[in-house]
Amino acid sequence: MKIKRIGICGYGNLGRGIESEIVNFPDMALVGIFTRRDPQTLHPALSSVDVMSINVMKQYQGEIDVMIMAGGSRRDLPKQVPEAAKYFNTVDSFDTHKKIWPYFNAVDNEAENAKHTSIVSGGWDPGWDSVQRVVADAILPKGETNTFYGDGVSQGHSNAIRRIKGVKNAIQYTTPIEEPLKRSRDGEIMQLESTDMHIRRCFVVLEEGADKEEVYRKIVTMKNYFEGYKTEVSFITEEEMEKSHNRMYHAGDLIHNAITGNGNKQQIQYLLRQDSNPEFTASTLLALARACYRMNEAKQYGAKTLLHIPPMLLSARSEEELLKKFM
Amino acid sequence: MKIKRIGICGYGNLGRGIESEIVNFPDMALVGIFTRRDPQTLHPALSSVDVMSINVMKQYQGEIDVMIMAGGSRRDLPKQVPEAAKYFNTVDSFDTHKKIWPYFNAVDNEAENAKHTSIVSGGWDPGWDSVQRVVADAILPKGETNTFYGDGVSQGHSNAIRRIKGVKNAIQYTTPIEEPLKRSRDGEIMQLESTDMHIRRCFVVLEEGADKEEVYRKIVTMKNYFEGYKTEVSFITEEEMEKSHNRMYHAGDLIHNAITGNGNKQQIQYLLRQDSNPEFTASTLLALARACYRMNEAKQYGAKTLLHIPPMLLSARSEEELLKKFM
Repeated sequence: MKIKRIGICGYGNLGRGIESEIVNFPDMALVGIFTRRDPQTLHPALSSVDVMSINVMKQYQGEIDVMIMAGGSRRDLPKQVPEAAKYFNTVDSFDTHKKIWPYFNAVDNEAENAKHTSIVSGGWDPGWDSVQRVVADAILPKGETNTFYGDGVSQGHSNAIRRIKGVKNAIQYTTPIEEPLKRSRDGEIMQLESTDMHIRRCFVVLEEGADKEEVYRKIVTMKNYFEGYKTEVSFITEEEMEKSHNRMYHAGDLIHNAITGNGNKQQIQYLLRQDSNPEFTASTLLALARACYRMNEAKQYGAKTLLHIPPMLLSARSEEELLKKFM
Repeated sequence: MKIKRIGICGYGNLGRGIESEIVNFPDMALVGIFTRRDPQTLHPALSSVDVMSINVMKQYQGEIDVMIMAGGSRRDLPKQVPEAAKYFNTVDSFDTHKKIWPYFNAVDNEAENAKHTSIVSGGWDPGWDSVQRVVADAILPKGETNTFYGDGVSQGHSNAIRRIKGVKNAIQYTTPIEEPLKRSRDGEIMQLESTDMHIRRCFVVLEEGADKEEVYRKIVTMKNYFEGYKTEVSFITEEEMEKSHNRMYHAGDLIHNAITGNGNKQQIQYLLRQDSNPEFTASTLLALARACYRMNEAKQYGAKTLLHIPPMLLSARSEEELLKKFM
């Protein structure tokens, strides 16, 4: 199998996850890591990997088969990916659900023009959960899907708290509310709002002299993030944060309940448990890089999501092996 | 959306399920039911639907967009589908796991020649479980998938018992063995054999004068079906069979346990609960008929499995709606 030459753009938790997981993908080789920071300050796990400034990235056109864009959804990806798609096939995990459609179209434009393939919004949710929601709705249309998140760390929500003035550090845990989760598991067909399904627990380290009441108020009233949710806020010390809140685990229970025929119940559950959410996402992006390369070889240009990808393209195994051993 | 004209070939449990579920697929219209039996003896649920002999089926070429082949995997589909693929796009639920590869190639040959598209082996397993196995192995390669079946009715195994001389009627229930199921759920990475994971419970009505000991022996020693399994056989009356064993429910727990990074556990569970297994399969085949039609329109000829199909093609919803509301 041809070796795919992989680049990583962005060296946070996700970038480091890709670097650690690529050893499990024998058809991939890491060519280089690109960063906005001073490359001298980064120390990759494999000493043989080059670290370079994001400013020289485009010079690597033709030397990298797929660039995995590992920046943040809020500020990095909306700027970086349409630009990168001019020079590379790309894969990313853009996860602002409400902005996926305009984002997809912006990337599609550039990738299509450049005859590149860009897989956007890969990962767990958006990602595999999205696939389950679409398939469940397509095959069992008389039903409802409920997606419960947690218990685990919501990185987007943690970052949102960190941006509040007076906050030095913060982490946010999401937990599903037991009662609707049990009803959904028991087969009840319900339309639920996210605010009725989740508790949000926040642990916050304040800057010296910060206004505790004001920070609390800004958290619980933050639109799209905490407003309407049952939100708990605890103020802790920096030592406590480092000691007790350093794991990036997450989990989710997606449940589709439906009816067929004369009142027959049908249920699909898709449950994930991740000790490390960044490593799960990283692993997904590497399999997507394989699909991205193959779709580009097949001249399927433009932006794609997991909804556009035949599952077989993700696998390193041959069609014959998959049909003989995995069907 | 264009209405797809659907035919059903075979009018057993699955054929009747397709007839009952098609009302939930607004872009599909049932054109006719084809049967090996005398058409006069069949009474479709909708009096407006034509019932015809399978012998006249090919005359409907051009009037049916997708023919759903609802016969049995043992004797019907291997003969009927390669023949039908000459005249129609087809969808089927061929489920003899060990024969999928040659079956796929036989159908591929005919469909490719005739510029038709044939989706084979759709349903739960092979089908959605197969997709989960392939994706889980692709994204979390340092792991193992265990597929537990039950509690529920195995139609193939029930039929296998019914073919034994002296058996008037039979039903077989498969139940997962608790201990390996619990270990898998708890995250243990294990290679398991199906015989270590399942109990098979058989309920048998004998013909008058049949040799009970001989029937028992033939069941528990049947290769590929019962040999090696913990198998329980109960002989019951015809009345008891009719009263207590008339539900076609099934269930399954697919669990993938894997490791990423420095020993982080990752788990994917895909759990199905079906009050009616034939109606679940029927619903899946109808969504596949939609994908089949679209792939044929896009000139993607030949045989396909669920592994070849982008999830979006299954849905009646637009790309925009899916990316806005389901991602």
